[in-house]
Amino acid sequence: MKKVRIFDSTLRDGMHAVSHQFTPEDMAAIARALDEAGVDTIEMGHGDGLGGSSFQYGFAKASDEDYLRAVSSVIKRAKLDILLIPGIGTKRDLEKAAKYNVKVARIATHVTEADIGEQHIKMAKDYGMEAIGFLMMAHMAPPEKVVEQAKLFESYGADAVYVTDSAGAMVPHQVKERVAAVKAAVQIPVGFHAHNNLGLAIGNSLAAFEAGADYIDGTVKGLGAGAGNAPTEVLVAVFDKLNVETGVDLYKIMDVAEDVVTPRMHRPQVIDKAALTLGWAGVYGSFLLHTFRAAEKFKVDPRDILVELGKRKTVGGQEDLIIEVAYQLSQSPK
Amino acid sequence: MKKVRIFDSTLRDGMHAVSHQFTPEDMAAIARALDEAGVDTIEMGHGDGLGGSSFQYGFAKASDEDYLRAVSSVIKRAKLDILLIPGIGTKRDLEKAAKYNVKVARIATHVTEADIGEQHIKMAKDYGMEAIGFLMMAHMAPPEKVVEQAKLFESYGADAVYVTDSAGAMVPHQVKERVAAVKAAVQIPVGFHAHNNLGLAIGNSLAAFEAGADYIDGTVKGLGAGAGNAPTEVLVAVFDKLNVETGVDLYKIMDVAEDVVTPRMHRPQVIDKAALTLGWAGVYGSFLLHTFRAAEKFKVDPRDILVELGKRKTVGGQEDLIIEVAYQLSQSPK
Repeated sequence: MKKVRIFDSTLRDGMHAVSHQFTPEDMAAIARALDEAGVDTIEMGHGDGLGGSSFQYGFAKASDEDYLRAVSSVIKRAKLDILLIPGIGTKRDLEKAAKYNVKVARIATHVTEADIGEQHIKMAKDYGMEAIGFLMMAHMAPPEKVVEQAKLFESYGADAVYVTDSAGAMVPHQVKERVAAVKAAVQIPVGFHAHNNLGLAIGNSLAAFEAGADYIDGTVKGLGAGAGNAPTEVLVAVFDKLNVETGVDLYKIMDVAEDVVTPRMHRPQVIDKAALTLGWAGVYGSFLLHTFRAAEKFKVDPRDILVELGKRKTVGGQEDLIIEVAYQLSQSPK
Repeated sequence: MKKVRIFDSTLRDGMHAVSHQFTPEDMAAIARALDEAGVDTIEMGHGDGLGGSSFQYGFAKASDEDYLRAVSSVIKRAKLDILLIPGIGTKRDLEKAAKYNVKVARIATHVTEADIGEQHIKMAKDYGMEAIGFLMMAHMAPPEKVVEQAKLFESYGADAVYVTDSAGAMVPHQVKERVAAVKAAVQIPVGFHAHNNLGLAIGNSLAAFEAGADYIDGTVKGLGAGAGNAPTEVLVAVFDKLNVETGVDLYKIMDVAEDVVTPRMHRPQVIDKAALTLGWAGVYGSFLLHTFRAAEKFKVDPRDILVELGKRKTVGGQEDLIIEVAYQLSQSPK
């Protein structure tokens, strides 16, 4: 029987959907239920990873250590996982995580910047963790570039590498191309992390699995940035239909979704206009607020700004460009 | 440039999501907006098609004629379409529809029962309508059976034939197999109608298109039975990314979703436990209420009943079996 390893990120990517306001008690309740349902790996922390709680990325309800303490104390079978974006999280954050029995560290960089994750991969290995390279916004780079960057992570000692569709901007053949190319080029397992902005979180996850992905990410009820992620309970049902072993009990994970996570949601996770536009334009979610402001100021359609930002392959940190693009659009003939 | 014809069924399948309570004014407002956005074909009526308003299938807010009058008076470019399930709708219903400039009639039967649609296809042709055979619950029949039934519809004079995933129970390769087999066997266009119970409405629609489907169904915001359909606005965005012409203006259809349909929704369209179970078990939505009642009475898990019903390939009208299955499950050792 074929197998797939499920990473559940309800308690990390899902934090975006609740403005990082899960309490440590919420996290513990969800983590306990995920653990009992048989989820292999549970990721937790601020939506932007360790150290993310800040004015810039939004303050979480509690500190990383409070969350780590609460979750690590209830997990019995699952591997505890954190995400760290170099530049947001630091070595000191990783050190803290190591004290709470964190077994897996995912080091997340822009798809063309694996090199800034080198020291963090090595640090995680030094702490005895499984270290995973996580290439974000993978739609922005052609397969050969994704391969090059995946091989960099492998060369740093990463135990696995992810193709990450951060903006939910890929269609199945694009996912297949990238995952298959990486799979053929590295010796380590390959993962895929979907977003649902184009309604393709499950479809792309299946495409990734067919192309050879060993690890697939989900979040219960699809909670996550933008239009959210692949719902874990739906992934488990679909893999069950395909006779692929996830190790997760389908009825239990359905019940986690309905009874444990749903009551803690702030809003339903749907594909609204903003999320769809982000996926279609292939732009990072953090641009949205600035874009709406600029659109109003310069009297242009915010979607036109996002499309132009997508064409220019703008990445996080380049928010200044939004004003420039909005101004240029306002000057161009209709 | 490749093309696809979009059928929007917000005003028919979407009626399930509002318990058939759109008013004629709601329908007119949505139809006008869909028409202005460039949607090719607009389907309308009770969720179960013409004549569906009844004690058994739920009473609609207004009569078929009230809806037909309201919608036909606002449509300028789009083709008006109705669905008719023989046994629910009658010849008289079709006659009424013809008076309101209905251009397309979709005759819907269970995937193994195209023969009961013969006279209705011929009737629709007699009224000068485009007549389409709509094979429901297509996951229940192997590709060769679907082909046989599609050819029957073609032999009755149907202008097109649909593969319909009524329970949202198929995965992409199952869709491809069926659509490709039908496409290879008939001379007429082939359509695909998705449901999102397994999160695959968009993924399966793409798979169908790749396998040769000419027509794809959507509903704005995914409104529809079970977990709903493929959201039309998402289909348009995805086809745009793939350089496939839909004729629909993406910004306008996004605005229809956000400004015209969302305010008229009764609840968000999500994949809840019931919908997911239906898709996973491959069972018709109308079984749900009876199943929950039987589960309570016999103290068994309703999901076990649905799975057993799926295995037995139960179809609408066989609700009596639910009690039998529940009883048998209650007697079997755990």
